[in-house]
Amino acid sequence: MNAPLPFDREALRRAAGEIVANVTELAARGWTPATSSNFSRRIDAHHAAITVSGRDKGRLSDADIMVVDLEGQPVATEHRPSAETLLHTQLYKRYPEVGCILHTHSQNQTIASRLFAGAGQMRLDGYELLKAFRGNDTHEAEVIVPVLPNSQDMHTLAAQVDCLLDRQPMWGYLIDGHGLYAWGTDMAEARRHLEAFEFLIGCELELRKLQR
Amino acid sequence: MNAPLPFDREALRRAAGEIVANVTELAARGWTPATSSNFSRRIDAHHAAITVSGRDKGRLSDADIMVVDLEGQPVATEHRPSAETLLHTQLYKRYPEVGCILHTHSQNQTIASRLFAGAGQMRLDGYELLKAFRGNDTHEAEVIVPVLPNSQDMHTLAAQVDCLLDRQPMWGYLIDGHGLYAWGTDMAEARRHLEAFEFLIGCELELRKLQR
Amino acid sequence: MNAPLPFDREALRRAAGEIVANVTELAARGWTPATSSNFSRRIDAHHAAITVSGRDKGRLSDADIMVVDLEGQPVATEHRPSAETLLHTQLYKRYPEVGCILHTHSQNQTIASRLFAGAGQMRLDGYELLKAFRGNDTHEAEVIVPVLPNSQDMHTLAAQVDCLLDRQPMWGYLIDGHGLYAWGTDMAEARRHLEAFEFLIGCELELRKLQR
Amino acid sequence: MNAPLPFDREALRRAAGEIVANVTELAARGWTPATSSNFSRRIDAHHAAITVSGRDKGRLSDADIMVVDLEGQPVATEHRPSAETLLHTQLYKRYPEVGCILHTHSQNQTIASRLFAGAGQMRLDGYELLKAFRGNDTHEAEVIVPVLPNSQDMHTLAAQVDCLLDRQPMWGYLIDGHGLYAWGTDMAEARRHLEAFEFLIGCELELRKLQR
Repeated sequence: MNAPLPFDREALRRAAGEIVANVTELAARGWTPATSSNFSRRIDAHHAAITVSGRDKGRLSDADIMVVDLEGQPVATEHRPSAETLLHTQLYKRYPEVGCILHTHSQNQTIASRLFAGAGQMRLDGYELLKAFRGNDTHEAEVIVPVLPNSQDMHTLAAQVDCLLDRQPMWGYLIDGHGLYAWGTDMAEARRHLEAFEFLIGCELELRKLQR
Repeated sequence: MNAPLPFDREALRRAAGEIVANVTELAARGWTPATSSNFSRRIDAHHAAITVSGRDKGRLSDADIMVVDLEGQPVATEHRPSAETLLHTQLYKRYPEVGCILHTHSQNQTIASRLFAGAGQMRLDGYELLKAFRGNDTHEAEVIVPVLPNSQDMHTLAAQVDCLLDRQPMWGYLIDGHGLYAWGTDMAEARRHLEAFEFLIGCELELRKLQR
Repeated sequence: MNAPLPFDREALRRAAGEIVANVTELAARGWTPATSSNFSRRIDAHHAAITVSGRDKGRLSDADIMVVDLEGQPVATEHRPSAETLLHTQLYKRYPEVGCILHTHSQNQTIASRLFAGAGQMRLDGYELLKAFRGNDTHEAEVIVPVLPNSQDMHTLAAQVDCLLDRQPMWGYLIDGHGLYAWGTDMAEARRHLEAFEFLIGCELELRKLQR
Repeated sequence: MNAPLPFDREALRRAAGEIVANVTELAARGWTPATSSNFSRRIDAHHAAITVSGRDKGRLSDADIMVVDLEGQPVATEHRPSAETLLHTQLYKRYPEVGCILHTHSQNQTIASRLFAGAGQMRLDGYELLKAFRGNDTHEAEVIVPVLPNSQDMHTLAAQVDCLLDRQPMWGYLIDGHGLYAWGTDMAEARRHLEAFEFLIGCELELRKLQR
């Protein structure tokens, strides 16, 4: 007889279903090239569902979703989670209200991260779509998107993110040459934030070509 | 027993069907990111069907369509209409022949609105596709697309639109940092106008990159 | 009893099927915005099937295809053919081997036509894909794409095209601010030519942005 | 009674299925315009399955896949393989571990090949997605993409490729005005390499527009 699972199997099933449905749509837009990107959904106060390392995000199924605890350790599975699992779990630990984290790798995100790595941030202001971010109710706002140096050492990256979070509230950040992390209280909000970041980053890149 | 509805339920059903079918296609093109955009269809002389506030336009169903009167007040529903409902109803009130209004939020529309906000308008001329606009039968025409300053106060925006409409006939306008409003006598014409605006705005942006 | 048709009904059915299947794919790529574009397929020595004027190319069905004779007159139908029917029939009359004509209206085609209208032509050379054009078997070739001034008078446009055809063999031309005509001996070849033009025009536009 | 086939029919069936499924997806992205591009999968130590010459890659079926030996000669078929078959078989002969070769013809690939033909190579560095290439485990790497002069003589092209392979390990190269060859140990790896090349080439082109 198997030991009882430390999480609710039905909660995992629901989380996996949400991840598969949404990631399939994001992959179709080309935001997850070459098996990149990773995605997670909180299950309870101590566990999150997350994509298994190295899977093709355009062909994702429930079997590609596993459970980790908030230290990033696999729970009741032989699978290996994404190398970047710590960047997910640090947010779930720090913010009980965070329920979903989406890390994508679109061309706009990668290009912007290279272009603004020196400045360390992108500034978004004057757009109606800033209202898509929780807490904003006007276009007369500004959203700062930090751009972190890339590292293969997740503890280094996580420490940098913690420093940023100590200084300012935010719903996402870029890593240089890499892509975007965006999050929210649930899948719908994380996805809305992700789409808003992608859209506004794209606008800024195009305006830069047009305005010089 | 319910009070009789002040509009024809079948007319609402048809309008909702048209909105859902067309918006699903527009969403697939990426013109409605992050739950933005709103869409309406006249039902009769005193009512219009309009999208409920904040819904994901890529997953729209009949349940996301509600009825407002031409003052923008909800009719026979608990739902809240889009914050921008007044920009729809002012056109239905002013022009009995207007039957459909499409407000989208494509990247080209947002970029052009930022770029031409200072000039207050975009000028489109010399294109065969100008014939897509009702009343034009030659490419030797010009269409002016006004660009309004954005505001969260819909009465301010509506008053600006009314000023423009007093001066010139038109089938659409841009709002700075925001997107495009386009309309027509029915869904097919509004959609044809919308597609023509989007196409021509895109051409102008690309030519600007190429011609300098 | 109806008079016998002057063309083979089965040949029309096959031609309409080919047009609908291919145009649906081209429309999905955004090459036929706002009910623009028109398409035809030869039925016999004296007739061609062609799209009815003003139909939405993304929702085309057999009912949107009619027959014209090679003077461009409707045959056995109440429908009105595209305003540009003469540009189709002049090719069928002049070249017995031409079996299919595709007129699209992509953004790249319109932009290139504006950009190269002054020069009167685009020159394509050094591309492997030049081998897609009938008669070319090397990338060490050049294909000239003429760019005609636009006109609402089809006899004027047709006369310009005839002048060009007197001087050089070709598989397509651009009209300023308007779009591309491409043709071939059958649907597969016309489509291959169309895709090659679109691809190479797009390459030239991007290289122009990158090389200055 | 037919002579026995010199390869396993079931291995061919599996290879053809993989090719058709993957090429259909690549064609939908516009990477195989105008019947261009070709694709192969190793069957055994002496044979590979490859696309028949000139087929429309958006409508590929098992009947469009044939077998060649590693000299590029058709085996047990009347079909003619792609003109570029030698560029496939030279890799299968040289590297027993190579199991799949994908040659596509995207606009980014063609543009980059023209732009960097003079330099003879593109340099990719600082990108997280460099980890998609077998053998790389950090973004602090560089991948050189050679750009060969185009030729209609496959022995000339193959000799150039052999020279390059003598000097450096690599997972792909560009041919000027033509497209990209990418390969891997199996379909999944070849596809991951292809997607990574396409993505990074696209990033480099956009950064060039933005950084000047």
